[in-house]
Amino acid sequence: MNYREESLKRHGEWRGKIEVVSRVEVDTREKLSLAYTPGVAEPCMAIHENIERSFDLTRRWNTVPVITDGTAVLGLGDIGPEAGMPVMEGKCALFKAFGGVDAIPLCIRSKDPEEIIRTIKLLAGSFGGINLEDISAPRCFEIERRLKEELDIPVFHDDQHGTAVVMAAALINALKVVNKKIENISVVINGAGAAGIAIAKYLLRFGVQKMILCDKFGIICEGDISLNSAHAEIAALTNRERRTGTLKDAMQGADVFIGVSAANCVSKEMVRSMSGGAIVFTCANPVPEISREDALEAGAAVVGTGSSEKPNQINNVLVFPGLFRGALDVRARDIDFQMMTAASYAIASCVDDLSADRILPYAYEKRAHDAVAQAVAKAARASGMARL
Amino acid sequence: MNYREESLKRHGEWRGKIEVVSRVEVDTREKLSLAYTPGVAEPCMAIHENIERSFDLTRRWNTVPVITDGTAVLGLGDIGPEAGMPVMEGKCALFKAFGGVDAIPLCIRSKDPEEIIRTIKLLAGSFGGINLEDISAPRCFEIERRLKEELDIPVFHDDQHGTAVVMAAALINALKVVNKKIENISVVINGAGAAGIAIAKYLLRFGVQKMILCDKFGIICEGDISLNSAHAEIAALTNRERRTGTLKDAMQGADVFIGVSAANCVSKEMVRSMSGGAIVFTCANPVPEISREDALEAGAAVVGTGSSEKPNQINNVLVFPGLFRGALDVRARDIDFQMMTAASYAIASCVDDLSADRILPYAYEKRAHDAVAQAVAKAARASGMARL
Repeated sequence: MNYREESLKRHGEWRGKIEVVSRVEVDTREKLSLAYTPGVAEPCMAIHENIERSFDLTRRWNTVPVITDGTAVLGLGDIGPEAGMPVMEGKCALFKAFGGVDAIPLCIRSKDPEEIIRTIKLLAGSFGGINLEDISAPRCFEIERRLKEELDIPVFHDDQHGTAVVMAAALINALKVVNKKIENISVVINGAGAAGIAIAKYLLRFGVQKMILCDKFGIICEGDISLNSAHAEIAALTNRERRTGTLKDAMQGADVFIGVSAANCVSKEMVRSMSGGAIVFTCANPVPEISREDALEAGAAVVGTGSSEKPNQINNVLVFPGLFRGALDVRARDIDFQMMTAASYAIASCVDDLSADRILPYAYEKRAHDAVAQAVAKAARASGMARL
Repeated sequence: MNYREESLKRHGEWRGKIEVVSRVEVDTREKLSLAYTPGVAEPCMAIHENIERSFDLTRRWNTVPVITDGTAVLGLGDIGPEAGMPVMEGKCALFKAFGGVDAIPLCIRSKDPEEIIRTIKLLAGSFGGINLEDISAPRCFEIERRLKEELDIPVFHDDQHGTAVVMAAALINALKVVNKKIENISVVINGAGAAGIAIAKYLLRFGVQKMILCDKFGIICEGDISLNSAHAEIAALTNRERRTGTLKDAMQGADVFIGVSAANCVSKEMVRSMSGGAIVFTCANPVPEISREDALEAGAAVVGTGSSEKPNQINNVLVFPGLFRGALDVRARDIDFQMMTAASYAIASCVDDLSADRILPYAYEKRAHDAVAQAVAKAARASGMARL
C-alpha cells in the first residue's frame, strides 16, 4: 500500500481523528441543573477555595495538550502550526488508545520561545501535564527547561525524551542479543538535534561510557568554537578522547550506531568498519540512514529502524501514552530520569521471544503500555515525584 | 433537590464532564501507518501547501474552544481560571449534545486583555471558531472587538450575545402574548455589565426605540462624566429623554423590564408602576431581581427568569450550540447581527403552544437547536459571511 496517498484519502474521510464527547446527560431539566447552572456553582466554589480540587472535580487530572509550533514536524521540518495538526491529532488518538489520556491538539502560531513559554504557562491551569511536540532544536531545550522549572505539572518533550526512552529500551534488549554490557560499549549517535542530544544525555546517565555525537559536519568535539550552546554542553560530556573527523571516522570500531539524522548518510562500508556484533539503529524518517537490508548485509547483528514495515520498529508511541498515564495516576509534579528509566526497562521487559528481529514490543501492544504506566507510577512514588 | 450539594457530589463522581475520544483505529501496524507515521506526512504537506485544507483534513472545522479568564463566572464573580472550569466543561458538554460541536475548555491565567487576546490569536489556527466565556466587563468588549477584527473565524462572547439573542427571542413571543409591537414599547434594562450592554445594543438594532439602561447607581444618562467608556457609548444610544434617577423612576410606565443584575432589587411596587401588560424578565442568578410569584402578584402579564425550575427560562443554552453549528457548517468568517437575528427568530418560532407561561422552547429541545443552526447558516449565506 502507498501509505501516504491512502492516508490523505482517509484523512479527507475522517475529517478529524479525535473528537470531544460528553460524559454527562443533559436531556432533562434536572440533568441540566446538575451538570450546568445552577448546580455547577458548587464545584466552582469548591475549586475556588482549594485549587487542588480542580484535579477531582474536572477533567484536569486526565487532560494533556499535545502542543507544537510546527517547526519540526516529522522529517518535514518547519511546515507551520496548522500543517502540524494531523500529527498532533494522531498523537492524541494514540494517547487515548494506549494510555486512556484525554489529549488535546494545540498549534501555536509563534516561533518565539518566550511567547511559546508564556502561552503554555497561561493555559497550564487547564491541564494535568504538558506534552511538547515537534518543536525544533535548540529552541525546544530552553522551552522545556523553563516550563519544567516554572510549572508544577509534568512537562515532557516527546521528540527528545520519548525517543531516548524507547532507544534505551531497544539498546537494553539488543545488548542481550549480542551479549555485550552497556558499560563496555562505544556508541556513535548521528544527528545532534532534539532527539540526538536527548538520547546522548539519557544513555550517559544510563551507563554508556564511550560515546561520540556527530552532526552533518562530522564529529562534535569539545573546544570547537563554532558549536551552539546545546552542542557545546553535550561536547563536554561525550567524546572524551577528543576525536575529530567524519561520521565514517567515528563509526570505525563502534559497537552501536544510532541514527536520528538524514537519509542515506551511512554506507555498507561504514557498517562493516564497526565491531563484531554491531547494533545499528537507523531511524531517519521516512528514509533511513541505511536500509535494514544493507545494514544486515554489511554484518550488523541487530538492526532497528523507524519503519512500521520492518522488524524492530523503534517508535516512541511505546513511551508517551503509558508514561503520562503513570504520571497522571500519581499526580506527579514532573517526569524525572527515574520515571523514564522505569519506562525503558518496562518496555524491554515486555518481549518474551527476544531475538535479533524482536527486540521491542509492537507499538500497539496494550500490555507494553500498561507495563510502562505501572512502572512509571511506581518510580514516581519512589523518587518522591508523586503527589498521590 | 438541593442542586448545588447534589452537583458537587456528581462532579466528584464524574471527574470531568467531557472527554476526548479517538475517531480512528490504531490497533494494527497498518492502521497506525495510516493515522500516524508514515502516512500522516501527506495530509500535513497538503495543509502546508494550502492552509484552508486544515478545515478538511483535521477536526478544525468542528472545534471551538470555550475560553475564560475566570473573572465573571456565573454570578460568582472573579473566582479564577481553574474554578471556572466546571462551567466551561458544562458548556462543552452542551455544545456537543445540542450542536454536535467539539468544544474544548481552556482557562487562561491572566487578566490582562492584551495577553488574553495574544494567547487566543496564537491558538486560533487550531480552531474553527472562538467562544469567549465569563470574562468581566468592560475588558470583554475590547477583547472581543479586537479578536473579531484580527481573526477570520467566528468570535462570540456568549455572555453578551448569547444572552441578547435569547432575550430577544423571549421578547418577540412575549409581545405576541400582550399584543404589543416592538417599535412602540419602552424597555428598562437593569445591569450594565457585559450582558446588559449587549442586550441594549441588540434590541436597539432589533427595533426597540425607547430604552433606559440602569446600573446599581441608577439610570445611565449621557453626559455623566463618571461613566466608563462602555457606559458612555451606550448612554449616547439610549435614554434619549435624558432622564435621571433610580431604577424605580425608570420603571414607571415601562412596558418591559429586563434584569441581568442582582438579587431582590425590584419590589412589587415597582412592577405595579409599569404599564398594563407588563413583561418582566428577571434573570439575576441564582436569586432573581424579583421572584416570579411576586412579579405576577404585582400584575406582570409575562414573567421570564433564569431558573430552570420556573416556566419561561431565558437560557442562552438555546443559542450557542445551534449558532456555532450553523456558523461552522458554512465556515463563516464571523457571526454578525443578521446571523444572530436569524437565531432569535428561529428560537421564537419553535413554540407551538404560545402562552404567558410558554414563550420559549425548553433548553433541551433538540428541534430548537436544529432550527437555530439552519437559520444561522442561511443568514450567513445571505449576508456573505459564509465561505461554503
